[in-house]
Amino acid sequence: MTKTISGFSKLSKSKKIDWIVNTYFSNKEAAKSVLEQYWNSNDNLQQLHDEFIENTITNYYLPLGVAPNFLINGKSYTIPMAIEESSVVAAASKAAKFWYDRGGFKAEVLSTTKIGQVHFMFHGNLEKLQLFFNSVKDKLITEAKPITKSMEQRGGGVLAIELRNKTNAIDNYYQLHVSFETLDAMGANFINSCLEQFAKTFKAEAQLFELFSEDEKNIEIIMSILSNYVPDCLVRAEVSCNIEDLTEDKTISATDFANTFIQAVKIAEVEPYRAVTHNKGIMNGIDAVVLATGNDFRAVEAGVHAYASRNGSYSSLTHASLENGVFRFWMEIPLALGTVGGLTNLHPLVKLALELLDKPSAKELMQIVAVAGLAQNFAALRSLTTTGIQEGHMKMHLMNILNLLDANADEKIKLTEHFKTHSVSHSTVSEALQSLRSKN
Amino acid sequence: MTKTISGFSKLSKSKKIDWIVNTYFSNKEAAKSVLEQYWNSNDNLQQLHDEFIENTITNYYLPLGVAPNFLINGKSYTIPMAIEESSVVAAASKAAKFWYDRGGFKAEVLSTTKIGQVHFMFHGNLEKLQLFFNSVKDKLITEAKPITKSMEQRGGGVLAIELRNKTNAIDNYYQLHVSFETLDAMGANFINSCLEQFAKTFKAEAQLFELFSEDEKNIEIIMSILSNYVPDCLVRAEVSCNIEDLTEDKTISATDFANTFIQAVKIAEVEPYRAVTHNKGIMNGIDAVVLATGNDFRAVEAGVHAYASRNGSYSSLTHASLENGVFRFWMEIPLALGTVGGLTNLHPLVKLALELLDKPSAKELMQIVAVAGLAQNFAALRSLTTTGIQEGHMKMHLMNILNLLDANADEKIKLTEHFKTHSVSHSTVSEALQSLRSKN
Repeated sequence: MTKTISGFSKLSKSKKIDWIVNTYFSNKEAAKSVLEQYWNSNDNLQQLHDEFIENTITNYYLPLGVAPNFLINGKSYTIPMAIEESSVVAAASKAAKFWYDRGGFKAEVLSTTKIGQVHFMFHGNLEKLQLFFNSVKDKLITEAKPITKSMEQRGGGVLAIELRNKTNAIDNYYQLHVSFETLDAMGANFINSCLEQFAKTFKAEAQLFELFSEDEKNIEIIMSILSNYVPDCLVRAEVSCNIEDLTEDKTISATDFANTFIQAVKIAEVEPYRAVTHNKGIMNGIDAVVLATGNDFRAVEAGVHAYASRNGSYSSLTHASLENGVFRFWMEIPLALGTVGGLTNLHPLVKLALELLDKPSAKELMQIVAVAGLAQNFAALRSLTTTGIQEGHMKMHLMNILNLLDANADEKIKLTEHFKTHSVSHSTVSEALQSLRSKN
Repeated sequence: MTKTISGFSKLSKSKKIDWIVNTYFSNKEAAKSVLEQYWNSNDNLQQLHDEFIENTITNYYLPLGVAPNFLINGKSYTIPMAIEESSVVAAASKAAKFWYDRGGFKAEVLSTTKIGQVHFMFHGNLEKLQLFFNSVKDKLITEAKPITKSMEQRGGGVLAIELRNKTNAIDNYYQLHVSFETLDAMGANFINSCLEQFAKTFKAEAQLFELFSEDEKNIEIIMSILSNYVPDCLVRAEVSCNIEDLTEDKTISATDFANTFIQAVKIAEVEPYRAVTHNKGIMNGIDAVVLATGNDFRAVEAGVHAYASRNGSYSSLTHASLENGVFRFWMEIPLALGTVGGLTNLHPLVKLALELLDKPSAKELMQIVAVAGLAQNFAALRSLTTTGIQEGHMKMHLMNILNLLDANADEKIKLTEHFKTHSVSHSTVSEALQSLRSKN
């Protein structure tokens, strides 16, 4: 039986499912009923979600959790997080509570500039290209007005257009390197539309530029596209407290805790194998809020990790110090986020998440997201440098294992109690459940 | 009114929602009903999803779409993708179809080794530390047997333990650098449990090592944790064809298309601003499959982007060439994935996604995921270097804008037709809809 198909995207959802189920599943009815079980009972709502992308067959559930007790610049937040990994929301909540009692998080947006580029090949004289660029610059801006007008009315728009000579990297390669302010929009569509218009004008005007030879007139546009590398769209988040306030735990002195914590951060600064996981933990917090607020986590991930490697070696995004009796823990990261456009007005749960956050501006959302990342890293380092990560993690995972083993409500209660003092693994849980069942 | 709360995690789901709604929302009933509208009608299924993480209040929907017509190493696949971004599934499907007719994708797993580290401080003589390490190595392995036994029975386990001297980076800093084979498991829990046991044994045995001074006996464990940097867990994906087969489009010659395409890849190789977005596009495809198959996209993202920066400058993950009349496009990326453990046996849609993929091994899943990334990049570069990205993207986004403007089914049909020949933006769609309505 052939497993290829023509015109699939034009089939109705139910015909798509029929084809998939008939082609790939032995128990066809079971597969179909799993997919349908995840449809929303409200047909209009389901259709809305179906139309977000192409070939939608059902809704993939990510748990939407909340982490309360975040104090950010003096304001209280409960932060929505969409994530499948157990212990992330719990860790965020713990870190939030811990810092709530110590003045909370401080966050500050350092810059909001975004970048886009027209990449092109020019075969000819650089000075003439520079003259052409100077002469065409105003026209680039003017011809993009229909696209930029409304953004400019709100105070944003194109900040600067530079001609960049990249021929040391590739023969004949140049760029229009453009910076943008996109306010509360993430700005991808705006930036790309501007750049494509610039490219069109640039190419057309080159044909008319009298100083150019025939070869020079034929500027070859390779592509026009925003950059997800946004080192000038930067936010800083920080916590600090007097060293004596740093621990509630009597088993370790505040200074020992601080020193080990700072050592762990320093290790992530110098050792890429550790830095990658260290930053991954930060992204657990960041992506969960990025997703819940309808932003694009692939864009954020790419920008953040590239930033972590900007000095030539992949390194920690967070830093910590103990000076004059004050413990300080902070991070600066690039975050291009939007609170208008995209999914933000479309996905009912995104709208709800933004309302829960008191309808933040893009700058406020940058602060909240950065804080979620810093909190996550604090919680992870605290576990790692004290009890180890597995104790908390496996406790959180206990419920998943119990569900997998079809434990009932009563068994869950008993075994949760039991595993408060025993170590969790798939086999220990399985054995404990068997032993419990054999007693009944 | 105070917006902090104690004991939140111990409240029932409905009490959690009550507190959130009462604390943060003006229209409390509306907020509550949005959250409840997303609950599954099957209580047991809902409870399963609630228990994946902490403080779950509802299910965040990501569209689950499918991209048919992937041919990978001669086998046909329809690939499940969970993603909110329009045009990703459509682009994957197009690229799949294009390459289906040209021999499909070739993929190969190059290596599967994963890394974990015990980071510790040792104040003393390196030669003695080396002697101690040699003497304790067997015991490290033996005492971890309860954890490693079942993995070893299946053919995996600990591959090697090295002592690494990192004192050139930080005074007194050393590592146990451990490599693992975790077979079909992603292996995070396994690796972390092993490492924590190694650390325990290592610390305890140091206390007993007679050559050590008192200072030397007090090895200070900073942390024990797997690395998400997995440059030796590598997969290669590739497409190739004779140059004359490369285009169906009469408006551009196959050689021109290939040369511009290759130029676009070279630009991403040398220009970090472009490389970040180039790789972000690859991750659109990769993360969508990673999510649908219950894997951890933060881990994958961190590992992939760090790998993209491994040579000191952030660079393209894909490469392209035209040699002897053959066009070739390929990528090597690190992917630590699992097809057992974690959510893979728990989330009904993950089980279904894995069944749709014919229950792949972790190695097969690495190949499928890499191919999804390569396909995505091919489609993106093809758009970028020919029509530009916005044309396709805004068409895909048209339905979102129409939904936002509450267009009805009839209006959607008419305007979709209209925008086949007009350019899409929020304002042009809004105007067209108004004009359509004023006619009726």
